[in-house]
Amino acid sequence: MNGSPQPGSHLSTPANMADVAREAGVSIATVSRALRGRPGVGEATRTRVQAVAERLSYVISPEASHLSRGETGRVAVVVPLLQPWFYATLVSALVGHLREAGLDTLIYQVDGAQERGRFLAELPARRKVDAVVLAALPLTPDQRDRLDLLGVRVVVAGGRLRDLPHVRVDDLAVAHTAVDHLVGLGHRRIAMVRTSDTDETPWEADLQRARGWRERMDHHGLGPVEELLVTEELGPRAGARALDRLLALPDPPTAVFAYSDELAAAVAVRAHERGLRVPEDLSVMGVDGHPVADLLNLTTVDQHVAEQAAETAATVIALVRSRAADLPGGVDPVAHRHDVVLDHTLVVRASTAPPSA
Amino acid sequence: MNGSPQPGSHLSTPANMADVAREAGVSIATVSRALRGRPGVGEATRTRVQAVAERLSYVISPEASHLSRGETGRVAVVVPLLQPWFYATLVSALVGHLREAGLDTLIYQVDGAQERGRFLAELPARRKVDAVVLAALPLTPDQRDRLDLLGVRVVVAGGRLRDLPHVRVDDLAVAHTAVDHLVGLGHRRIAMVRTSDTDETPWEADLQRARGWRERMDHHGLGPVEELLVTEELGPRAGARALDRLLALPDPPTAVFAYSDELAAAVAVRAHERGLRVPEDLSVMGVDGHPVADLLNLTTVDQHVAEQAAETAATVIALVRSRAADLPGGVDPVAHRHDVVLDHTLVVRASTAPPSA
Repeated sequence: MNGSPQPGSHLSTPANMADVAREAGVSIATVSRALRGRPGVGEATRTRVQAVAERLSYVISPEASHLSRGETGRVAVVVPLLQPWFYATLVSALVGHLREAGLDTLIYQVDGAQERGRFLAELPARRKVDAVVLAALPLTPDQRDRLDLLGVRVVVAGGRLRDLPHVRVDDLAVAHTAVDHLVGLGHRRIAMVRTSDTDETPWEADLQRARGWRERMDHHGLGPVEELLVTEELGPRAGARALDRLLALPDPPTAVFAYSDELAAAVAVRAHERGLRVPEDLSVMGVDGHPVADLLNLTTVDQHVAEQAAETAATVIALVRSRAADLPGGVDPVAHRHDVVLDHTLVVRASTAPPSA
Repeated sequence: MNGSPQPGSHLSTPANMADVAREAGVSIATVSRALRGRPGVGEATRTRVQAVAERLSYVISPEASHLSRGETGRVAVVVPLLQPWFYATLVSALVGHLREAGLDTLIYQVDGAQERGRFLAELPARRKVDAVVLAALPLTPDQRDRLDLLGVRVVVAGGRLRDLPHVRVDDLAVAHTAVDHLVGLGHRRIAMVRTSDTDETPWEADLQRARGWRERMDHHGLGPVEELLVTEELGPRAGARALDRLLALPDPPTAVFAYSDELAAAVAVRAHERGLRVPEDLSVMGVDGHPVADLLNLTTVDQHVAEQAAETAATVIALVRSRAADLPGGVDPVAHRHDVVLDHTLVVRASTAPPSA
């Protein structure tokens, strides 16, 4: 009917279990047992079946295999946005670790309070996954309650939420480390710069870092400091706006502690545009361990995102396996032991120095 | 048996379709028709069923709903690495568009030739998805052949592969635009800097951009230029190493065209470290439309990644729907019409200017 090349026509019909059984000269049940690693098949037969399956490019339907064990073989990862470095790095490492354990990763992106509300109303991940990872997701108390309706185990990465198992750094201590570093250099006017998301919901880690900064300034006798805390809406100009506000103060800061390295980079570039030298006129530091901090030689507190992802994956895998093994309900050793708090690391580079005054 | 708080015990039993039918005073079949938007249900009944379903937090099992139409409701997105900005931005936008169409996204990450080979040997996405998106994935001819074994439609984003439908910018033309911009400013020694992945497989877009740069240099009578093409292994120091090599030439370039904005940023920072002013001593530009180019005021060729993602999602959704509707096999209007080439845009910023010599 159509003489032109047909891109659809190169789709071959995949081999099925019956094809493998015929080629290997065994029953379909034997193929199934051999490929699923179940007992009742001799080694020689198992090897032959595997060789035939490989030759025919037959893969046992993971769908059917998992469903028969009451599992989907999938994990959902829910992030506010995939694009920012923290989330891309976390998810990238998670996907790799989960795949090593034979688990696929579904991604859900729920930016802003409205999307989060919609996600929890529609529950698109429900019944589709064995576990859900919530990555640094700000939720209202109502939304936290609705998590139970997902009907699966939830692991929290990069923050804390209710009594769920979580993996994080201690964001209070992260801020203490940053303030101590700057105070140790001789700074007394130390600003903190952070961003809010588009509907002004602050993140848990953000709240903790601001609280830690405030606490530690008080501890060093440098408070009250509220005029030195600047919150800007997330966006490419947030850092510039924040620094402009700080420089307009009667007594501007000599150092800026930014919530993230991306924000610290924007503050440093803006300082340069405003004719200030970093670190001579202004010290700037961030949090993350982001490549831009390395590129621009910025001091940072590394929060070891790849390690957070590895711990999160280990928690998820343990939960999925304990569930698959039908452990008695209620008693859940994995959930009980999981408040994993990873160490952070101060990385001193060229953007922080004693104040010149 | 265990008196301590039991994190597992807050998992409630989800409502099922029978619960909704009982509460709404209708048959299970009516609930199914009402919630799936099928005909044969009056408006008042549909509204009542929906209200009850919402109150009971009942969501129709998407698994069952899709399977009954011969679909999984899922799309696999395969990337070399999720973390770099291009992939994170592309996948972030894709996930959003696919979710709007009721499709979930599975992520596979296959970095390096060995991982790609393993992915195509194990075919972990096989039978789990309705379509696969390959995002700028370098494949050997053998690996290209194995794509047929996936048994689903494949869409290519950010490049070209065989006769598959694809969405991309014209990378030859991207390089022409960059060279024309620099030649127009008066440059004659224009270097190109690019990276290879860890096993030295170049990307398709990369090869095209290098070819376009070479062609256009010839076109302007500025070739041969092979000593001005520098390829470094991907990594945080790639830009610095590349610039160091170029500055060691007897006749160093006055302008650098970098494969990406991240690489251009690294080159610009290295130029600064080496005591060169940008753009007075060296013009630097990249490709992408990356936030770091905005931050550092770098000239770029914007490749509109979010628009590439939107076109890719539209192609995937059309393929999945045409397949679901059981169109006659072979004739595939969507695949035939899909070589979507998006326009790119030159964004001139402060990092390019006439050479001072």
